[in-house]
Amino acid sequence: MVVSGQRDARAAADRYARVRAATVALIAGLDPEDCNLQPEPDVSPAKWHLAHTTWFFETFVLAPFMAGFVPYDARYAYCFNSYYEACGPRWTRARRGDLSRPTLREVLAWREATDDAVASLLAALPDEQVSEVLGRIELGVQHEQQHQELLVMDVLASFAAQPMRPAWRSDPLPAAPPAPEAGWVHVAPASPEIGAAGPGFAFDHERPRHPVLLAPFEVASTLVTNEAWRAFVADGGYRTPTLWLSDGWAWVQREGVEAPRYWVADGFGGYGQMTVRGVVALEGAAPVVHVSGFEAEAFATWAGARLPTEAELEVVLAAQGAPEPGDTFLDDGAWTPRPARPGAGVRQAFGDVWTWTRSAFLPYPGFRPLPGALGEYNGKFMNGQWVLRGGSALTPRDHVRPSYRNFFFPHQRWVAAGVRLARDA
Amino acid sequence: MVVSGQRDARAAADRYARVRAATVALIAGLDPEDCNLQPEPDVSPAKWHLAHTTWFFETFVLAPFMAGFVPYDARYAYCFNSYYEACGPRWTRARRGDLSRPTLREVLAWREATDDAVASLLAALPDEQVSEVLGRIELGVQHEQQHQELLVMDVLASFAAQPMRPAWRSDPLPAAPPAPEAGWVHVAPASPEIGAAGPGFAFDHERPRHPVLLAPFEVASTLVTNEAWRAFVADGGYRTPTLWLSDGWAWVQREGVEAPRYWVADGFGGYGQMTVRGVVALEGAAPVVHVSGFEAEAFATWAGARLPTEAELEVVLAAQGAPEPGDTFLDDGAWTPRPARPGAGVRQAFGDVWTWTRSAFLPYPGFRPLPGALGEYNGKFMNGQWVLRGGSALTPRDHVRPSYRNFFFPHQRWVAAGVRLARDA
Amino acid sequence: MVVSGQRDARAAADRYARVRAATVALIAGLDPEDCNLQPEPDVSPAKWHLAHTTWFFETFVLAPFMAGFVPYDARYAYCFNSYYEACGPRWTRARRGDLSRPTLREVLAWREATDDAVASLLAALPDEQVSEVLGRIELGVQHEQQHQELLVMDVLASFAAQPMRPAWRSDPLPAAPPAPEAGWVHVAPASPEIGAAGPGFAFDHERPRHPVLLAPFEVASTLVTNEAWRAFVADGGYRTPTLWLSDGWAWVQREGVEAPRYWVADGFGGYGQMTVRGVVALEGAAPVVHVSGFEAEAFATWAGARLPTEAELEVVLAAQGAPEPGDTFLDDGAWTPRPARPGAGVRQAFGDVWTWTRSAFLPYPGFRPLPGALGEYNGKFMNGQWVLRGGSALTPRDHVRPSYRNFFFPHQRWVAAGVRLARDA
Amino acid sequence: MVVSGQRDARAAADRYARVRAATVALIAGLDPEDCNLQPEPDVSPAKWHLAHTTWFFETFVLAPFMAGFVPYDARYAYCFNSYYEACGPRWTRARRGDLSRPTLREVLAWREATDDAVASLLAALPDEQVSEVLGRIELGVQHEQQHQELLVMDVLASFAAQPMRPAWRSDPLPAAPPAPEAGWVHVAPASPEIGAAGPGFAFDHERPRHPVLLAPFEVASTLVTNEAWRAFVADGGYRTPTLWLSDGWAWVQREGVEAPRYWVADGFGGYGQMTVRGVVALEGAAPVVHVSGFEAEAFATWAGARLPTEAELEVVLAAQGAPEPGDTFLDDGAWTPRPARPGAGVRQAFGDVWTWTRSAFLPYPGFRPLPGALGEYNGKFMNGQWVLRGGSALTPRDHVRPSYRNFFFPHQRWVAAGVRLARDA
Repeated sequence: MVVSGQRDARAAADRYARVRAATVALIAGLDPEDCNLQPEPDVSPAKWHLAHTTWFFETFVLAPFMAGFVPYDARYAYCFNSYYEACGPRWTRARRGDLSRPTLREVLAWREATDDAVASLLAALPDEQVSEVLGRIELGVQHEQQHQELLVMDVLASFAAQPMRPAWRSDPLPAAPPAPEAGWVHVAPASPEIGAAGPGFAFDHERPRHPVLLAPFEVASTLVTNEAWRAFVADGGYRTPTLWLSDGWAWVQREGVEAPRYWVADGFGGYGQMTVRGVVALEGAAPVVHVSGFEAEAFATWAGARLPTEAELEVVLAAQGAPEPGDTFLDDGAWTPRPARPGAGVRQAFGDVWTWTRSAFLPYPGFRPLPGALGEYNGKFMNGQWVLRGGSALTPRDHVRPSYRNFFFPHQRWVAAGVRLARDA
Repeated sequence: MVVSGQRDARAAADRYARVRAATVALIAGLDPEDCNLQPEPDVSPAKWHLAHTTWFFETFVLAPFMAGFVPYDARYAYCFNSYYEACGPRWTRARRGDLSRPTLREVLAWREATDDAVASLLAALPDEQVSEVLGRIELGVQHEQQHQELLVMDVLASFAAQPMRPAWRSDPLPAAPPAPEAGWVHVAPASPEIGAAGPGFAFDHERPRHPVLLAPFEVASTLVTNEAWRAFVADGGYRTPTLWLSDGWAWVQREGVEAPRYWVADGFGGYGQMTVRGVVALEGAAPVVHVSGFEAEAFATWAGARLPTEAELEVVLAAQGAPEPGDTFLDDGAWTPRPARPGAGVRQAFGDVWTWTRSAFLPYPGFRPLPGALGEYNGKFMNGQWVLRGGSALTPRDHVRPSYRNFFFPHQRWVAAGVRLARDA
Repeated sequence: MVVSGQRDARAAADRYARVRAATVALIAGLDPEDCNLQPEPDVSPAKWHLAHTTWFFETFVLAPFMAGFVPYDARYAYCFNSYYEACGPRWTRARRGDLSRPTLREVLAWREATDDAVASLLAALPDEQVSEVLGRIELGVQHEQQHQELLVMDVLASFAAQPMRPAWRSDPLPAAPPAPEAGWVHVAPASPEIGAAGPGFAFDHERPRHPVLLAPFEVASTLVTNEAWRAFVADGGYRTPTLWLSDGWAWVQREGVEAPRYWVADGFGGYGQMTVRGVVALEGAAPVVHVSGFEAEAFATWAGARLPTEAELEVVLAAQGAPEPGDTFLDDGAWTPRPARPGAGVRQAFGDVWTWTRSAFLPYPGFRPLPGALGEYNGKFMNGQWVLRGGSALTPRDHVRPSYRNFFFPHQRWVAAGVRLARDA
Repeated sequence: MVVSGQRDARAAADRYARVRAATVALIAGLDPEDCNLQPEPDVSPAKWHLAHTTWFFETFVLAPFMAGFVPYDARYAYCFNSYYEACGPRWTRARRGDLSRPTLREVLAWREATDDAVASLLAALPDEQVSEVLGRIELGVQHEQQHQELLVMDVLASFAAQPMRPAWRSDPLPAAPPAPEAGWVHVAPASPEIGAAGPGFAFDHERPRHPVLLAPFEVASTLVTNEAWRAFVADGGYRTPTLWLSDGWAWVQREGVEAPRYWVADGFGGYGQMTVRGVVALEGAAPVVHVSGFEAEAFATWAGARLPTEAELEVVLAAQGAPEPGDTFLDDGAWTPRPARPGAGVRQAFGDVWTWTRSAFLPYPGFRPLPGALGEYNGKFMNGQWVLRGGSALTPRDHVRPSYRNFFFPHQRWVAAGVRLARDA
């Protein structure tokens, strides 16, 4: 037991160090001012992500468990608490880009000091604290991984908002095979259940596992492509109100939406796409990405199909169980979704793009949030947001699972979200 | 068949005339300027309701089915189409109060002319049109009833927005029996189904009827009262962020919410309530009304309970089947929810206040909207709104049924909405 | 003295009765809902003007001078105080259209009661109060006349904001002679002075009279016409940023301004004009009206000229002294500016349209506001507004004088404002 | 002539180099992210100032006069044109803080390349271009000096907007002598003239020099101090609407203004002040700074005085002619206004704080803007802004003169503006 506790703590320390280093590695090639941008309220500066994730470990691991804990800088909690009401007052979310201080240099120093402290704590962890502390370390690591994705999303949004449209990465995008033809896959689960069970990590809102009723349905074998979306645009999809939800059409008109978020009209009816490699030619076979839930819903209506529910999609994901080698994740370096590989059956189930579902983010029957401040992690967002599933090209590969529930408002599209169609069988 | 068609048409004409007259009867005692107010975008002037419901019959009954149809005034369609994209352009919703023309006199004349035309149509309806026309008449009558409730809600909101706080009605409020004690009722349905089946009228979004999975649960025997809500206020409910959904807390702070919408602080810690009878003393035993979904959710959390889902609530309503004599509806003239009657078991299931559920307004499995423009009636609002059930003191008594789904955004509270608590069994 | 005081009081009572009756006469032909409209914050309902002017007499004449004064309704002061901080709290300006109560009927009854009370007061005025009371009566009458113009401006704005574009007046517009050719008139005043002197009524901000320095200048003999403005539009005036002040260009872009406020594009490059007679053909020889100060300034730049200063314009007005018979005022019933009469020299100096000057509304050297609450009448608006001179077709004929200073913000154009060009000699 | 031209060009090159270097020296001690902040639309990032001033020389000197001119980076003109419509489209002003690219490193490199090019141009300037090019060089240098002041204002605003309230400078503030007593100085100019005459540099809007009429007046010997302002606050100055212009009072309420912009309430009724040295104790004898025109006007009313007109203040400044040694300017390193020196007569006429006048920024009689795009420099801002005079502790000492007209809107207070009282004699 003691031995096992020490072994677990060492493993946790290794995983902690690896994930924390991966976050810092993301900002390679960025200048300090690149890391301080907030072109819109939803976007946070890269520096803020580096700091907030550090605050998370300081607040939920070091403060309660480290003997003689003194905060690195007592003012940082105010600056970098995101939304935890139980953790006290905090800086306005929409003004994170106004914080030049602490500087990037200072935040990186804070990260190092915090990492040292966590390493010390784990190296000498009393047995009776192993379970609780390692649970929180794992939650913090999962949290860090979520912010890795957010950091990349946010830098992309910040670069796309500038007239120079800078490129972040200069390595070539991996070559893609010829595009496979999409098909429909019949699904008729018997006695389906969804949600997380067992001892592995899952967020509170993935539990409890529970039975669902599902009529047979069909799901598209691959994600909706840029090519298909071009046809939707050309057919007047963005000018046809009857395709849209009422709120969606109001959004289209208010925002003047005419194409996916990062499509760049060339003035001659064609489109490029702003990516981490700057503006590149639109790849027809690649999945469409950075579309809102409203757009996804309108596209599905236009296509004579519908979006899947989250239960349907979890059943599809669970049937495959885990990502396949060809699926695209943050670790692969593309940072842009890739065309489906040839083959039969469902492909691109995990990675590439988060898939919008037609389900509201609501508590599962019997849901219980975590105790204390950590109970604010997910539960208080169970309002009208929409659920997305499966992970994206910006998600760390080991971060997803079939029961994973992501959620955004249906107008938000700086997340790497796309579409998989479904229809009644 | 022919005889039956004529008999059905006569019955429809009677019902049409009765419901239409009831709408006009509502504005007794109002001056023309009272009927032209729009103090906020959600509210429509009473005159607008009188006109829009007339447009509905003109557009969906007279125009397609009346030989030689000519619109009463071709400009009115632009003024009084609410949101039907397929019916052409229309006046801005938020500016309905700017329309002094047509005047109230002119709108009432239009109503009469339209009613005459509908009566003529029904009096000589070809057999082959009976089914379709009577179906649309019934839809229009149900629509008219929805606007009766909206009209009263909107005049109340318009009067509450004025410093003079005028009273609309001068008849005394019916006396109420002493308040019964609330209890919990256990519900454990076997093989429950929800939704409308059979030939009776139901909106498209109530169909198809389908099975649901429900764990056993408990539901409060009566609605949450003003007395209980006062305790919530006194306990700092509106100042405790951890009770609230994140969007709800943002709403509380942005709007400075401190009590239900029409509560009027007396400056000494007590409250009155703005009603159709002006500002009156707060009746402790009466159900709290005009609270938002956010407030309902926060109250439930504070009370250690939760809101019911819409499936749970439909099961409760279906067990009773229909309103009981003591339930309060528009026809009863109180226009204010009344205390629960003594007794055991679930009371106030129908009427008094719409009950917030913790369910998003989404399509039932296999949902199909009505064809054509009428398909916009409900389907395009299936976004993040919340479902409410059961009707209110402003709903016509014959307008509700167990499968009836009402929906509003969780911040909206000019609807006569209240709370019934539930909890896991 | 006594005799003279009584004679003066009788004359004041007559004048009071005549002007008050003229206000009520303005709303002939309007329905109650027409009198309750506020399509934008700057506009007040006609009913509000009827009430506010009554409040003015109640507050500044009856309350201080009538023995045993009791307000007609103590709540009205809150509703109808416009902006007098010293007179206590008041209803939000932008929400005047929300007040259906008191109704139009009730406001007219209040007017009658107030008029009776004022008549009684004047009929038995103690000698020692004659001077102060008659001074206040005259101020109130001048105030009432200002609101007559505002009432007409506001109803026109309210009708123009409706899709039905109702006509208010049905009498034909007086015929107009052929348009004269515009010319330049040289002005070289010796030792000019501006401002009001002597015992006649003038607002506090017209005093004290003081010398000004003026270089010789030239002024256009007539007002800028619709014809000339059409040339400005056709020449791209609204699309050429270098013609505009910086704030003006921002306003053009923000508001999408393309023509004077009430011009109605016919879709083929031509224009009609919304007037009190509904939408009519644009009369080329008539003065352009309902243009902002920004538009006036841009037009002048385009025309190679400039706007006059207020001192220059007062010198021109003073040379003529008073309106000429052919000038158009409220009393004439046109309520729309008319073409210049033939002739030589300056015409249209008074009436037709208020003339924008290139002067800021600031205190004259030695300016002293009225004592007490009435000191708020003008002084507190001496910020960046622009001065206009000369009166308009909506101004009562006996209300203007050479020293009269009107003022609006340069983006406002619901006032009947137009342009007279000037240039350095 | 030739010799003189070369000598003048060498002198201009020296002055150019000196002023350009002074701008870069200002950012010593700032990190790159400090130079990229825009906490509000009026504020521009320090990097933007470094770039925009460089664009000015590139556009108005190098492009027209340098043989074979090629822009350093053709995209920079779009990024760094401020408001010159005649120079083509440009990036949105309110989003300058979103530009991380070009980075600070890149902008500094551009500055060096531009400085080299200007030096080359001046070293071989054809005689016939000397006059025009040196005129533009001087305009650009004056422009650069204006942006030096703006840069410091903007960094101070950016630091004050952060919870850490960083200090920029660490050198101690120079000691100040005991505060002198304020007095009144009588001024009765005979035949006064204002405006610039003669060959020395002046902006177009300072010309032409022209006579003004001025009644005798009195002016305070020193600027209004923090001590005096504290009394205004304590006396309820910010809660008394009758002291304020109407627009000013609306601003106070809308913004919740309770003290000068950078005063920091200590929670016990006292105040500190945010400065370039962080938050320091409020120095009672120092001039109040960072107050708006509205505040200045309300204070003057409270004090029974008024603001001077710009003509009055120019007469006072002209009587002294130029700054005195003790006046505080940017070059002195305090960057914070200092108490008045002992003595008699008018002190603090130049430097320390810009003095609000009660004059609108309007064209002088006979004003002619510069030809071409440079005509947009000042003329298009001649709307309702208020004139300020005399320079501040952030102004380069050799940048002011008696005829200098600065202008801001009366609600703006991130400029180092203060108050000198006047009154009628």
